[in-house]
Amino acid sequence: MRAEIVSVGDELLKGQRVNTNAAFMAAALAGIGVPVGRIVTCSDGEEEMASVFAESLERADIVLVTGGLGPTRDDRTKKAVQQLLGRGLELSEEAFANLAARLGQRGVELSGSLRDQAMVIEGSHVIANTRGSAAGMILCCPERFQNHYLVLMPGVPSEMKAMMELTVLPWFAALSDTVIRHTPIKTVGIGETTLAEMIVDIEDALPGGTTLAYLPHAAGVTLMISTLGREQEVVERDNRTVVDAIARRAGKFIYATSEVSLEATIGAMLATRGLTVAVAESCTGGLVASRLTDVPGSSSYFLQGFVVYSNQAKERSLGVPKETIERFGAVSEEVARAMAVGCLEKSGADFALSTTGIAGPAGGSLEKPVGMLCLAIAKKTSGVLLSKTLFMHADRELNKFRFSEAVLRELWECLQQD
Amino acid sequence: MRAEIVSVGDELLKGQRVNTNAAFMAAALAGIGVPVGRIVTCSDGEEEMASVFAESLERADIVLVTGGLGPTRDDRTKKAVQQLLGRGLELSEEAFANLAARLGQRGVELSGSLRDQAMVIEGSHVIANTRGSAAGMILCCPERFQNHYLVLMPGVPSEMKAMMELTVLPWFAALSDTVIRHTPIKTVGIGETTLAEMIVDIEDALPGGTTLAYLPHAAGVTLMISTLGREQEVVERDNRTVVDAIARRAGKFIYATSEVSLEATIGAMLATRGLTVAVAESCTGGLVASRLTDVPGSSSYFLQGFVVYSNQAKERSLGVPKETIERFGAVSEEVARAMAVGCLEKSGADFALSTTGIAGPAGGSLEKPVGMLCLAIAKKTSGVLLSKTLFMHADRELNKFRFSEAVLRELWECLQQD
Repeated sequence: MRAEIVSVGDELLKGQRVNTNAAFMAAALAGIGVPVGRIVTCSDGEEEMASVFAESLERADIVLVTGGLGPTRDDRTKKAVQQLLGRGLELSEEAFANLAARLGQRGVELSGSLRDQAMVIEGSHVIANTRGSAAGMILCCPERFQNHYLVLMPGVPSEMKAMMELTVLPWFAALSDTVIRHTPIKTVGIGETTLAEMIVDIEDALPGGTTLAYLPHAAGVTLMISTLGREQEVVERDNRTVVDAIARRAGKFIYATSEVSLEATIGAMLATRGLTVAVAESCTGGLVASRLTDVPGSSSYFLQGFVVYSNQAKERSLGVPKETIERFGAVSEEVARAMAVGCLEKSGADFALSTTGIAGPAGGSLEKPVGMLCLAIAKKTSGVLLSKTLFMHADRELNKFRFSEAVLRELWECLQQD
Repeated sequence: MRAEIVSVGDELLKGQRVNTNAAFMAAALAGIGVPVGRIVTCSDGEEEMASVFAESLERADIVLVTGGLGPTRDDRTKKAVQQLLGRGLELSEEAFANLAARLGQRGVELSGSLRDQAMVIEGSHVIANTRGSAAGMILCCPERFQNHYLVLMPGVPSEMKAMMELTVLPWFAALSDTVIRHTPIKTVGIGETTLAEMIVDIEDALPGGTTLAYLPHAAGVTLMISTLGREQEVVERDNRTVVDAIARRAGKFIYATSEVSLEATIGAMLATRGLTVAVAESCTGGLVASRLTDVPGSSSYFLQGFVVYSNQAKERSLGVPKETIERFGAVSEEVARAMAVGCLEKSGADFALSTTGIAGPAGGSLEKPVGMLCLAIAKKTSGVLLSKTLFMHADRELNKFRFSEAVLRELWECLQQD
């Protein structure tokens, strides 16, 4: 079974809204082993919708449509389907009762336009709307499309999601005979090209039904290993074989094989061992602290952050010696080490991280270009563990993020060896 | 002129990534008066891409494609276009020089797969990639599609955005005979419904060709006023009339009528007056410092940040009295005020902001629920200017962002009155 998704809405075509509905539906369908072949966004004109629905129904077994079921004039999805299938409308007692119950609570009368919300295409299976008033529909289409299914849902995300979970997914899961397994392999500190070269032979020998996708983002790459098949056991085994092979090859760059962030991975390692951390930031401007404190429960291991942009702040808040700054410059491993040591002392934490660098766009020179980062990590029991200089070459915002990723990666490595 | 957008990528069809690229491109095209008819997401199979490209080229004058130009094996966009148009590849000297310059700096050799990145479809106009290695292309297609345009760009958002702004938009703006004017009205501290009620009569009386869209986001609403027409002067006048009317009505919630962030607006106000700022953060965990330092040139006014998660850090780094914390609790306006005053003293800045609250998910109580924020602002010359308690009710990440927005909004108001 193959699906397509049709998103109806001019606000999507004007770029005023990002199509998060389609991603939700696609992921949900993948979860029941139904791959999505195409996602089409179209305007809410009757002719346009009717032809988009027809094209999708010809290609796919299931077509999920969202949008155009509301009470206003630009909601024409039902009209388009009537035109396409030559069917009429009928009142759904079930949808009408739902509507009356919902609105009765709010003391609103059932006007004509509200009653329209309970009118459905003849012969549909009604999808109850537990979050709103427009009824959804599942239509089997023997007229033209060899029993392919057309599913109509509202575009309001909360209404669509509830319909998917309560009705649509169980309905099609029962018809699907496919099992699927996705495993993300989350890496840091390695680029797409280098990683691809490192695992080229594994990629060449993927078992049937297994695919490997590169999902690059600002600071690294996530590999997604997906296995599709009929037997649960075979699917799990094939998927695990590939994940294990890649883990053996590129293990030093892999921080997780599940949907978890680098900062959460580090947080779990610190929490498990009862260790604490503090950060001293110049060029990352608070981003490292902010990422670490994005993790729920981080107050148990994150003690304190110092954002020391000015030289004076570095001296006063962290005790970085004035002469170190004067002799080596604020962007130097010497200053990074002094910041880390000062941060340890002021905070009393077990680990301290520091960053000093040039995020840009101004402030660079030939010796110290924009994108240069000096970082250090120190540990209460053993002093400075490492300091490093790295060079990124991006814009300010991306540099800040890559700087933060670099120092978090070093901490993650230290914790692995700890 | 009409456009379509094709997004290539299995990760989009699996719902592993939300298609933000398409929204960006659609909004950008709207900005030069080119409406988007459809957005199609398809898989990276060669046959599939070739047929999607062909269908779109038959319907639209311009087809923008993103994805499938990278160095890995699942990057097959160029192959699909070769198949579709029957053209070969040629080395682009320009793209190769760009690649060599980029990678030379990092000391990496130009391997075969990297050289492939500089190969383009014969007869294309090359779009320089200022953020990455894969070259983009603009192809005029006289072979099959009556001089319709096919534009190929990488799927990495930063690379695609730079290509759109530097090359693609100027190229097609010159071919478009429609004038369009968009003005964003950026608000803070007011919800969509309240704002809509406040300007209902202005919305009812919009001039012809002018539309008003609500773009709600995590912390507020941007109103987008768009005017479309043939004559520059009329378009500008109609657009300005609406913007001015809304500004008169809702001025106290509007911080900008251009694409600028709240932090950049504040930064410009500080820089102009030669004032400096420092921040003391508990619940925002460094996010306020990070947002302020996202602004280029922020080192001229941002002195220092203190991320004081633990009570001990509040006492030691900012001199918050232990008894204040014990008597009122760490989340209290009393502590927020003491943090702001301590931050002023330790940093020497002209303004100090502070936040203390409960981001969640744990740590809430009936009196102090998750989403509670206490904030304060102090000024060197006059001490504490204000303290406030606010209540948000969202998840941890959204609360952190809303907390940061709330304290930045208060600073913005103080600066307006200053």
